Amino acid sequence: MQRGLNATREANFADWYQAVVREADLAENSPVRGSMIIKPWGYGVWELIQAELDRRIKASGHQNCYFPLFVPLSFIAKEASHVEGFAKEMAVVTHHRLAVIDGKLQVDPEAELEEPLVVRPTSETIIGDAFSRWVRSYRDLPLLINQWANVVRWEMRTRLFLRTSEFLWQEGHTAHATEADAMAETLSILEMYRDFSERTLAMPVIAGEKPENERFPGADATYSIEAMMQDGKALQAGTSHYLGTSFASAQNIRFQSETGELTLCHTTSWGVSTRLIGGVIMTHGDDDGLRLPPAIAPRQVVIVPILRDKPEDEAVLAYADALAVELAELTAFKAPVRVLVDRKPGRSGEKRWDWVRRGAPLIVEVGPRDAAGGQVTFMRRDQLWASEKVASVSEARAAFIAEVPARLAAIQQGMFDEAKARLYENIRDDIATFDQLAAHFGPAAEDEDANVTFKGWVRCAWSKPSGEALEEVTRRLKTLRLTIRNAPMAQPKTFGPCLFTGEPGVEEILVARAY
Amino acid sequence: MQRGLNATREANFADWYQAVVREADLAENSPVRGSMIIKPWGYGVWELIQAELDRRIKASGHQNCYFPLFVPLSFIAKEASHVEGFAKEMAVVTHHRLAVIDGKLQVDPEAELEEPLVVRPTSETIIGDAFSRWVRSYRDLPLLINQWANVVRWEMRTRLFLRTSEFLWQEGHTAHATEADAMAETLSILEMYRDFSERTLAMPVIAGEKPENERFPGADATYSIEAMMQDGKALQAGTSHYLGTSFASAQNIRFQSETGELTLCHTTSWGVSTRLIGGVIMTHGDDDGLRLPPAIAPRQVVIVPILRDKPEDEAVLAYADALAVELAELTAFKAPVRVLVDRKPGRSGEKRWDWVRRGAPLIVEVGPRDAAGGQVTFMRRDQLWASEKVASVSEARAAFIAEVPARLAAIQQGMFDEAKARLYENIRDDIATFDQLAAHFGPAAEDEDANVTFKGWVRCAWSKPSGEALEEVTRRLKTLRLTIRNAPMAQPKTFGPCLFTGEPGVEEILVARAY
Repeated sequence: MQRGLNATREANFADWYQAVVREADLAENSPVRGSMIIKPWGYGVWELIQAELDRRIKASGHQNCYFPLFVPLSFIAKEASHVEGFAKEMAVVTHHRLAVIDGKLQVDPEAELEEPLVVRPTSETIIGDAFSRWVRSYRDLPLLINQWANVVRWEMRTRLFLRTSEFLWQEGHTAHATEADAMAETLSILEMYRDFSERTLAMPVIAGEKPENERFPGADATYSIEAMMQDGKALQAGTSHYLGTSFASAQNIRFQSETGELTLCHTTSWGVSTRLIGGVIMTHGDDDGLRLPPAIAPRQVVIVPILRDKPEDEAVLAYADALAVELAELTAFKAPVRVLVDRKPGRSGEKRWDWVRRGAPLIVEVGPRDAAGGQVTFMRRDQLWASEKVASVSEARAAFIAEVPARLAAIQQGMFDEAKARLYENIRDDIATFDQLAAHFGPAAEDEDANVTFKGWVRCAWSKPSGEALEEVTRRLKTLRLTIRNAPMAQPKTFGPCLFTGEPGVEEILVARAY
Repeated sequence: MQRGLNATREANFADWYQAVVREADLAENSPVRGSMIIKPWGYGVWELIQAELDRRIKASGHQNCYFPLFVPLSFIAKEASHVEGFAKEMAVVTHHRLAVIDGKLQVDPEAELEEPLVVRPTSETIIGDAFSRWVRSYRDLPLLINQWANVVRWEMRTRLFLRTSEFLWQEGHTAHATEADAMAETLSILEMYRDFSERTLAMPVIAGEKPENERFPGADATYSIEAMMQDGKALQAGTSHYLGTSFASAQNIRFQSETGELTLCHTTSWGVSTRLIGGVIMTHGDDDGLRLPPAIAPRQVVIVPILRDKPEDEAVLAYADALAVELAELTAFKAPVRVLVDRKPGRSGEKRWDWVRRGAPLIVEVGPRDAAGGQVTFMRRDQLWASEKVASVSEARAAFIAEVPARLAAIQQGMFDEAKARLYENIRDDIATFDQLAAHFGPAAEDEDANVTFKGWVRCAWSKPSGEALEEVTRRLKTLRLTIRNAPMAQPKTFGPCLFTGEPGVEEILVARAY
């Protein structure tokens, strides 16, 4: 039987991932090592992610700004702990001119900058510098800023959407008068990310706090949402940091309180990136390609007219167009239904499979018989197969149209339910010792990208060791290529002994292999 | 009498411009020379510009993509004519790591890139490279791509929004099978820019073709829209280029035609940038600050509650909030009315002036008397003064609400009409010789940024000299600091003799001082 891809998740998950990105026409590698070209279908997904997140960010009182791409080297140097964390792998601008020398275009040695400029790996320092000027009095607080931008972190080993040198993201930066206010912000953003991820991306996640050695450098607390991919690995899909007063101290962000004292602000930062698209692929894709949750599908209904270079083609096209017009008047996910009539030249059979690979939620095929009989023949991308055949269904036109909003909602919900079941069914909580943990996960594969047997995650009690004791746990986990993902927000009331230290547990954590 | 600014257009237009940008809280200089920080109010304007242009770009069949920030040096070198035009002033990334050496964070000399990377001054070459891979057959044409991005052109002398090293823009790039198709695209985009500028920005422009020496390097034809600022200077507000087959040839963008021949594509490119915001400021601002056309005002109605730390404050706030809720349910410019209750601490008189400076179209002040009497007291930003007093008007609440959409439309139209009258009244068409031209414009001012007397533009017959003859005209114009802006699309049927060559005119051109 024909399938959408020549790769399967089971045979090699990494190859399958690449095949989906390519065959769904989401993105491609660019001639610049480590940078990607996001193609229209992939960028359309990102635009929908942006639109809904931006709506939420604004609704919660944040304002968008734009800060410079370049950060002076001295800013990075100021933030010592910061630097440590970013591994110093950054793109550095050292010159501002090209010149033809000896008949060849090259960097003009005369045009060296006095101070090198770093291409922002994050805007933490440049925004902190602005905050130090913008915050004067308690009246200026809270200061709630967000930015949509491109950032660059030099990467040696890249994978489209998951790890690229340049990526697109949103970074929120806020300043508050008190720890309580800043912490409330940190957690309300975490909850926004969780809700967004589950509702809009249909991607279930577990929100929780990172262990201290996984914190954003300089942060007092780092929270994340973690999603389970179909190979059982965890993907950190968003982070929210409470930075305490250390960034404010390094960057001199102070305010005059109501009583007149000059006081350090408490700051936060938080972000999600185009990595989310990688998460969507690995949560929902199947061996026929991508499956997009309708809420982020650039086209929710694609109509493929079956044309045969015959006189009846005209009636088929008119029928398809009229159907599209009616569908576009409907509402799904609080916006007009996004519908396309695929008029590009080409065989309808091939076009059907193109849209299967791209993951359009509803694919409609309209031929002369449908046009004549007032029917619609369609496939649900989430239920493509029925006993080894593509499940193509015919319905009366009016009934089909009436059902589209509910059907899109059902697809969205079904995809979420399926992923949620996978997540919760694959968190083991019956593993009590490190040996059991090692036995469960087995040795780390030679090639971590090739498929390893699906292992899921382990949830276990944790005594929250610190410093060297925590490093020791991390080292042991690393031999199994495991990491602590987070301590989920939802915790039981009592805990068994810590899997690692044997001491009384104070919380539970998730342990997994991860991207 | 109190005014919003301490600067006037008449005293020094350049100082006035800076004052508006600062006092309207639009943007500020950043610690990185030449780069700006776009603040929430300024970025809000940009988001509205983006949203409407993006809607139009998509409605005309274009798709958004994202291409890498970095362009390999070899790509720039390939495009020789291209390089010439960009004056080679570009930010160049030469290293990918920072390191602590001798206790100091610096560029790691070990981490030099094999090939330097240029921060995109435009994405022409990197998109051309993608097109060479994406275009195979006539079936792939037209290929209609747009990108929203940041670009960098190293500038020595910068001015916020008008000329900065980094700026935000949209760049369209398209490939077509025939010259006719590509030219139709070029002109339809020009018309889109004109209509957008006039309808959405209320900024009248004249669309036309640039003389050959002002073309985008390598282009066969360059078109622009030109707007008249309140100092009489021209601002090029958008460009659309027909690139012929030269870019396709340099970048190998070919397609197999229906008859099987391998044929070069005809390509176009076009863009507008954050410079448009500079145009809006200099078209609509006055000596009290910015005046925003309602279509791009982040808040169209701002309600300032007059609070006195007294028990009746609560009623005033409740009244303001209820008013805001009702207004937000109304529609203006096909979107919900954007309304804000300004609850920030501070005196209402100061807040009134803040919103005057920021250019909010309708500023409402609500005090205890209004709340008790069911009234609304408001100012129209476009009609702020009545015989040296701020024209504050009271209306019954229901009547005010009912009138808001029409009033916003009237403000938008009034601002456009005012600017259009200024434009057309200040184009002289009765100047026949170069001496008269020199006498009209007078000598070039020492400080071109300080105010010079308003001169407007001159429209004159033009014999379209080429090559050296054109250079000669350009040199003569340069002594007066004048340039040819464009040859307007709308032309008469007959022409007098050319002002410069005395030869028979073949079209009319606009001559002006310009930004």
